[in-house]
Amino acid sequence: MEVGSAPSKTSRAATRNPERSRERILQAAFEEFAAKGFAGARVDSIASRAEINKRMLYHYFGDKQTLFREVLRRKMAQRQTWAAATPDNPAEGLPYWFDLAHKDVGWIRLLEWEALQFMDKRLIDEDSRQKAINNAARRISKLQRSGHLSKRFNPRHTLLAMLALTWFPIAFPQLTRLICRRSASDAGFVKDQREFLATFAAAFQKGTASRRSHSVRFNGSKKNSE
Amino acid sequence: MEVGSAPSKTSRAATRNPERSRERILQAAFEEFAAKGFAGARVDSIASRAEINKRMLYHYFGDKQTLFREVLRRKMAQRQTWAAATPDNPAEGLPYWFDLAHKDVGWIRLLEWEALQFMDKRLIDEDSRQKAINNAARRISKLQRSGHLSKRFNPRHTLLAMLALTWFPIAFPQLTRLICRRSASDAGFVKDQREFLATFAAAFQKGTASRRSHSVRFNGSKKNSE
Repeated sequence: MEVGSAPSKTSRAATRNPERSRERILQAAFEEFAAKGFAGARVDSIASRAEINKRMLYHYFGDKQTLFREVLRRKMAQRQTWAAATPDNPAEGLPYWFDLAHKDVGWIRLLEWEALQFMDKRLIDEDSRQKAINNAARRISKLQRSGHLSKRFNPRHTLLAMLALTWFPIAFPQLTRLICRRSASDAGFVKDQREFLATFAAAFQKGTASRRSHSVRFNGSKKNSE
Repeated sequence: MEVGSAPSKTSRAATRNPERSRERILQAAFEEFAAKGFAGARVDSIASRAEINKRMLYHYFGDKQTLFREVLRRKMAQRQTWAAATPDNPAEGLPYWFDLAHKDVGWIRLLEWEALQFMDKRLIDEDSRQKAINNAARRISKLQRSGHLSKRFNPRHTLLAMLALTWFPIAFPQLTRLICRRSASDAGFVKDQREFLATFAAAFQKGTASRRSHSVRFNGSKKNSE
């Protein structure tokens, strides 16, 4: 990231503190992309949200796609720090991921726009995103080896299920409201969902069932399952 | 639904078979709403997809909101029939829901648009949607009473978790691809995810843990959880 390249004389404030200007632009861009998606976002609106002139914005970031890539990178770096702090025990890890989802609704919205607009096309900055995901999958494998998570499940399907359980209520707030009859941001809902996740996390933990066996389930559940 | 109201002489084909014209409009409208969301959908495009003139479309459905409501109603009726056929055993029920999600990507996309654009606002046709969701929650309660599902979890949080696990891979196809390194529509991924869900379903089944106890998990998992 070439932070140091000297800005031209487009704005006094920006010249005085280019780092702060970049920061303001990136924050404004994140908000615009989360609100309207990559296709719907307008550089004009980003400049206006950041209270910076458009020429300065282009000077720093070139074009909308470069800006989006930079927003993604910054966000992924932040999220990787958060991910690294995930408790090993899934009974704490799932509520923690749910808290992160709440704190980072903009990120989930941004990915939702991407799901609708990119579909199966190659993603912007796909390689570094693949790396971040691979790190997360490796972390799951490690927790399987250390006995914190069951080896019964493929680590990548485990990761997908953990994301699903913790993100879905935030990604579909209208369904959460219809299903649980409280807003996804309601304190009572958040408390109950955290408790649900803490208990439900046992599903990912080491049980007595043999690895990858479909007929043997968690101890005790088989005879009661029908 | 007033199917019978006589169409005026706007189109010969439509006059000959108003039911088929309505059907074609509703199908075209569903596709347009799934592709672009309620806000982005254009009545012009729907008329053009349905190969019917716009005046005829307005004759049948009044306006975009009425059309959307009709699309929702039809879809919900269809989905309620599908839901009623859900196997009682979650080891079959979850893969079945996953299959439905695959078959009905348009519905999930439509709800994703709604999540992004409606947020916490009152939904179009909210009352009948609430009723459909209440039916689904009642079905979960019934399966808890009959012993197919664990009573450990609140039925509404159970429903939310089941939707999450089965819809998320379809709702975020780009994440599925990054995480599982195969497209969400790849036959190998579908097979593996169905198997994962069939095994993972044990988490919803009757275990040996006491009801609503957080400290007691599935038998055998507690001593291994740390």
